[in-house]
Amino acid sequence: MSRPRHRKPAPDASARALPLALSQGDPAGIGLDIAIAAWSQRRARSVPPFALFGDPRAVSARARTLGRPLSIAEIADAAEASAAFAKRLPVVPIAHAERVVAGRPSAANAPAVIAAIEQATSAVVRGKARALVTLPIAKGWLKGAGFRHPGHTEFLAELAGRHYPGEHHFPVMMLVAEELRVVPLTIHVPLKEVFGLLTAERITRSVRIMHRSLVADFGIAAPRIAVAGLNPHAGEDGTMGSEEKDVIAPAVATLRAEGLDVRGPHSADTLFRPEARCRYDAALAMYHDQALIPLKTLAFDHGVNVTLGLPFVRTSPDHGTAFDIAGSGAASPESLIAALKLAADLAARRALGRR
Amino acid sequence: MSRPRHRKPAPDASARALPLALSQGDPAGIGLDIAIAAWSQRRARSVPPFALFGDPRAVSARARTLGRPLSIAEIADAAEASAAFAKRLPVVPIAHAERVVAGRPSAANAPAVIAAIEQATSAVVRGKARALVTLPIAKGWLKGAGFRHPGHTEFLAELAGRHYPGEHHFPVMMLVAEELRVVPLTIHVPLKEVFGLLTAERITRSVRIMHRSLVADFGIAAPRIAVAGLNPHAGEDGTMGSEEKDVIAPAVATLRAEGLDVRGPHSADTLFRPEARCRYDAALAMYHDQALIPLKTLAFDHGVNVTLGLPFVRTSPDHGTAFDIAGSGAASPESLIAALKLAADLAARRALGRR
Repeated sequence: MSRPRHRKPAPDASARALPLALSQGDPAGIGLDIAIAAWSQRRARSVPPFALFGDPRAVSARARTLGRPLSIAEIADAAEASAAFAKRLPVVPIAHAERVVAGRPSAANAPAVIAAIEQATSAVVRGKARALVTLPIAKGWLKGAGFRHPGHTEFLAELAGRHYPGEHHFPVMMLVAEELRVVPLTIHVPLKEVFGLLTAERITRSVRIMHRSLVADFGIAAPRIAVAGLNPHAGEDGTMGSEEKDVIAPAVATLRAEGLDVRGPHSADTLFRPEARCRYDAALAMYHDQALIPLKTLAFDHGVNVTLGLPFVRTSPDHGTAFDIAGSGAASPESLIAALKLAADLAARRALGRR
Repeated sequence: MSRPRHRKPAPDASARALPLALSQGDPAGIGLDIAIAAWSQRRARSVPPFALFGDPRAVSARARTLGRPLSIAEIADAAEASAAFAKRLPVVPIAHAERVVAGRPSAANAPAVIAAIEQATSAVVRGKARALVTLPIAKGWLKGAGFRHPGHTEFLAELAGRHYPGEHHFPVMMLVAEELRVVPLTIHVPLKEVFGLLTAERITRSVRIMHRSLVADFGIAAPRIAVAGLNPHAGEDGTMGSEEKDVIAPAVATLRAEGLDVRGPHSADTLFRPEARCRYDAALAMYHDQALIPLKTLAFDHGVNVTLGLPFVRTSPDHGTAFDIAGSGAASPESLIAALKLAADLAARRALGRR
């Protein structure tokens, strides 16, 4: 290792030639299917080179099942992936306790699922890969292996803390498509718990991270951010709920006083119409479905999940493991291809900004 | 009056030739603008004949302001509207206390706003018009005149009760566009109050009314109804909220036992993707924004609000009074034109079913 573990990747021009690090997710799900499909379309779709962290035998077997046999380049160092990528699918091997079967998640392989995320992240932090892309996991199957996080995002914040001790990371999940960029303020919690999590501090912290990332990663010089209300018609002047007056509007006022171009709270039902979307670069929604409904309605197969607020770039496809169709050839690689391309773009722009 | 007030309109073939009854809504809003625009486009867009219940002077003045001067046919009986419609805009006069000014709502004119709704409804009940279409009101301006309803829908249920004593009406609001039909189970309440209103009884009652209306009014022989969950991922097997297991799933089971084709609870974020929408004829959402976000995102200017569960057909455009642009010519008549056409279609189908 040429760099100490607690430093950010050096602002090196050669970083742009580095591959992406792709963690396998649950190998019994569609992650392997779409990784194979994305690699197969590498030329036609200009898919950036990636190193897959997973089980080479499982990848070969799945490719045969899908009727697309391929050659694998087993590599020890993710950085070798770019050279191999044109001819072979580069895999950094992760040891698995038992044979992977499509559609049959295995508790015994849970440590390998977690190890793939850890090693892919580590490759990015050590400058062996330019950004992290993660394939979907199924949390329920990881609990036995000690995975206590609500999802990928929180686990990555912990990993960031391990790699950069002393830094505190507040990860923010943004959904990105051509049609819309949207951040849910609260994510995987029962709707009833949203009220307790809705604080001005959470809003201001999230918007500041959105603003910084829109500038540094997305290259938007003066980002415009729209904030949704919580209640119907954003509370209609307090007649249909008070959170807008009590929490959201004061947070927006604080952010505007800092010079950020933030507006709201807006009525959420009209915020995602085309003529509203052209007036902001990203929207902050108050809860999961308020963000995910418009995103998935507009961008049904190419939405990408991006984690802002980490010391490295991370994206992922916007869907789950879909065990029921793993190995069938029915899974679409569109969201993964979009996630790989976006990760490469964001990493290139972030690297550019560092110089 | 040839028919007693407590009877439903007779199943008369001539009903199809009757006009629609259009209540003016708040005359200081864009209602008059879009009524005038819809009438102007009557030939090009095949707008069905309507009688506007409002102030003839205000209509003339607004038409001049908009640069589209027109002739008005003042009529005492809405049924006369069809004959006049080709050449003149038919208006059933409603007395106003003061002159209407675009963009300046008036408490003094509130009784006239309410009277227009009452008289338009009465015309439909008495068989003088085939269906009711309402232009938007602003509730806040009607309170002084004794209007205590959360909105049009509830007021119309009360009017139905006046006309058909002994019948109990449970109005259900459905949003309709080419892309989607969706019913919000709860409407204009703070999000925090949704939990208390979410009962199996409300769900089963709403779905039964949806089913009956999809058959009788929309002509769908075997309607498929999808029910959304309340929590992210429909609660993910109870790990993110319990309302799905405790309330929604049992209600769906009850309805299926009755032979209705009802499915759910479904994850709301994926329920409005194109490949999901083709699998149902209407969706039941749990709260306002869960229904209105996808509807307005997909059908940004042509959504129509339909009230199911009333003894007459009622539609309305899917927007508010927009006082700020009244008289400017900026208001789009698309939603009103869609509401007029849909009202005519639904009324024709309902009349057909009665024979």
